[in-house]
Amino acid sequence: MIDFKPIISYIEPSEEDIKEVRNLSNKLIEIINITARDNGFDAEAVLLGSVAKNTWISTDDKEDLDIDIFIKFPLNTSTDDLKSQGLELAQKCIENFNGTYQERYASHPYLTGNINGYHIDIVPCYDIKDSEELKSAVDRTILHTDYVMKNLKRYQQKEVRLLKRFMKMVGTYGSEFKVGGFSGYLCELLVLHYGSFLEVLEGAFDQWKPGYQIDLEQHGTTHLFREPLVVVDPTDKNRNVSAALTLQKMAEFRVAASNFLETPNESYFYPKLIDCHRETIRNEFKNRSTNSIILTFPAPDIPADALHPQIQKTEKSLVKILENGDFKVMGSDSCSDEDKKVVILLEMTTWHLPPFKKHDGPVIWDEENGKKFLQKHPESWIEGDQWVTLTKREYPDAESLIRGTLTKMGIRRLRVGKHLKKKIMDNYHLINVLDFLIDENLDVEILKFMHCYLHKNEFLTR
Amino acid sequence: MIDFKPIISYIEPSEEDIKEVRNLSNKLIEIINITARDNGFDAEAVLLGSVAKNTWISTDDKEDLDIDIFIKFPLNTSTDDLKSQGLELAQKCIENFNGTYQERYASHPYLTGNINGYHIDIVPCYDIKDSEELKSAVDRTILHTDYVMKNLKRYQQKEVRLLKRFMKMVGTYGSEFKVGGFSGYLCELLVLHYGSFLEVLEGAFDQWKPGYQIDLEQHGTTHLFREPLVVVDPTDKNRNVSAALTLQKMAEFRVAASNFLETPNESYFYPKLIDCHRETIRNEFKNRSTNSIILTFPAPDIPADALHPQIQKTEKSLVKILENGDFKVMGSDSCSDEDKKVVILLEMTTWHLPPFKKHDGPVIWDEENGKKFLQKHPESWIEGDQWVTLTKREYPDAESLIRGTLTKMGIRRLRVGKHLKKKIMDNYHLINVLDFLIDENLDVEILKFMHCYLHKNEFLTR
Repeated sequence: MIDFKPIISYIEPSEEDIKEVRNLSNKLIEIINITARDNGFDAEAVLLGSVAKNTWISTDDKEDLDIDIFIKFPLNTSTDDLKSQGLELAQKCIENFNGTYQERYASHPYLTGNINGYHIDIVPCYDIKDSEELKSAVDRTILHTDYVMKNLKRYQQKEVRLLKRFMKMVGTYGSEFKVGGFSGYLCELLVLHYGSFLEVLEGAFDQWKPGYQIDLEQHGTTHLFREPLVVVDPTDKNRNVSAALTLQKMAEFRVAASNFLETPNESYFYPKLIDCHRETIRNEFKNRSTNSIILTFPAPDIPADALHPQIQKTEKSLVKILENGDFKVMGSDSCSDEDKKVVILLEMTTWHLPPFKKHDGPVIWDEENGKKFLQKHPESWIEGDQWVTLTKREYPDAESLIRGTLTKMGIRRLRVGKHLKKKIMDNYHLINVLDFLIDENLDVEILKFMHCYLHKNEFLTR
Repeated sequence: MIDFKPIISYIEPSEEDIKEVRNLSNKLIEIINITARDNGFDAEAVLLGSVAKNTWISTDDKEDLDIDIFIKFPLNTSTDDLKSQGLELAQKCIENFNGTYQERYASHPYLTGNINGYHIDIVPCYDIKDSEELKSAVDRTILHTDYVMKNLKRYQQKEVRLLKRFMKMVGTYGSEFKVGGFSGYLCELLVLHYGSFLEVLEGAFDQWKPGYQIDLEQHGTTHLFREPLVVVDPTDKNRNVSAALTLQKMAEFRVAASNFLETPNESYFYPKLIDCHRETIRNEFKNRSTNSIILTFPAPDIPADALHPQIQKTEKSLVKILENGDFKVMGSDSCSDEDKKVVILLEMTTWHLPPFKKHDGPVIWDEENGKKFLQKHPESWIEGDQWVTLTKREYPDAESLIRGTLTKMGIRRLRVGKHLKKKIMDNYHLINVLDFLIDENLDVEILKFMHCYLHKNEFLTR
């Protein structure tokens, strides 16, 4: 096996890093608590999340670290009070440090801010002791932090860090909709269950199959869940921590684990350099002889965690619209740089069709509707006992179908939020992938996206 | 309603016709019975079928009339004796009249011959009194003839003739595999059940739905059958006379009945003139913008009732082969002039595909097979929990797929008898419909076939 020490020393925050983050956190908590007392609010700020658990990963970029400050209110606080007092305390705290912030919504509002380059979430919540008292999903963080701090051994903190880093580098980390992968808490529970990073990989390799069950506290409730992986929340027997994990990401992690165990290599813990050349990608698309089109449009100004589900919905909806139009979609993908541009790629094996299509009418026994149908379509014929006719196909090619969909008349077919609909209709660009790839000034991120579309397992092996 | 008299007088045989047919039949029977006695065979010839029932239709062509002579043997005759003695009697009889004949097989051998332009079937059978005694399917004819002669009123004979003629002219007559329509016996039973030609049409229009049941002798066994139309055989409670009727032909008859009842017209009883021009048909195919190909090959030398199922199997098998190759077939049809040439038409909406296709591998949890698959296909990726790869498509266009199928290597894919396989492989011709229709010397029957493919309900309305 490889020597993990250099990796650990790279991803483990230094003593100074820890001191700095702890100091900042303590100051934030102090300010909030003082402000609460001054205003007569019954509230107490605490540090939760990976900083509290000491399972965060130090990277060059402070932005990747979340400092989670929760402001706990007694259970008898009204939600209005919790919201108004919580946000007021959070705002004053960040303003005090000359930070910037935005209001966000999970199950209730919270602030996400930036102070001295650190990314801070300040979240009002109820001070629960037990999942039975749960009033809002964010309240769980108290119980989760508590459980991990009580159970994770000190030497296991680095095992969690190795697992998180491995997951990030092979592309299976993150329980948000965009990824559908493993959350930080799930990584911690896997290390608690299996013991170490390597044992988690071995467990996934040897034991996992769809429906695999882990029940750390023997709650005996695994039968309640139908997801690909079941990890009963030790703090709530009615919750599967792994509910957001897709079969796809579970399978990808298993394959990456298998690859690593077969030929262990420290490169699994560092970003894989993707050597992608525009010309090469263009030739690969050309050789496939499919028809791939690129739809680009400006990203609407909504938070990333709201944007990605919307983009994926748009992609899936376009695929559905094409397939309902009898065009065959072999694959699709989407990406966004979150600030500027959304890119959707649609690869088709059928993109041009005859101008007519078969259209089923009523059964011939249905005299009334049959007559109406025949009046409208005098050239109908019988198949089995059903009237059938040829009708003009509205869009005989895939491109005109998409353009027709992105109009005032057609847009109702697209199943996506109105923010995005407006953005697409106002200013979209539709281009064949081969023409798109002629542009010598394409962003490297776009090229990477296209390379990864063509080489989907790129990150699972080194 | 129209005046049926001129129609009846056209389709009803004249006194002289009847006399001539009866005389011929009686002479045939006499010869057979004398020969039987001379040879010491215990056999007796009788006249059965539509001549005996007086429900045959006189047309200009004698060939359309079947004279059915059955040679009845006692139940204790061995099948070998029945076969050898029956065929000997039949041969001698036809030779006596200087006729020509062929041996055919239904459930056992019979002779089909031609004497003075009349088409004669001479069929050895067992002399049964009841369906319980049935030894072979042909034996039923005795019971059927008997039942109709006993129950059909004299004035109803013309009603049967009208119904048969109507059925023939709208294309729903004939229970053979090629048509899948109404048999003569079924027409007779429908007239017995409803009373007259018009009442059969009204019954079909008002009452018929898939699963409609008629049980003339109240056998109470309709629940045994699942076919679209159930007509319990009055002479055998365990048989559905309508078993060979397809939903398609049942529906077509109902639509034709509805059309006739709405605007009665004597033209329903005469052949419809199909005004088909090569150029018009070619333009119609051109306007559809589909890709239609014509496969022609010499018909193998087998009887028509064996040839048609084989041709239809070939057609269906080619459609299946195309669709398994991801080509989309919108419609197909086949015809044969029974002597010389078979024609199969295949109309496609997709006939050209990219050179690669997605190919599913094992699930990723299957370590052993997964490894083998990856060795063979290193560029595989994961979809859900399955390995997927791109493989080269053997035939990227429909024409090359068909040509590849009609080779020594490919022919096993075609699900059809070896007679036909040999004929196709030896000498087939594959051509695009637009090129095919440039030929100014095309047979008018072929043009009619193509016109009817484009206008499938042509014969149901006048």
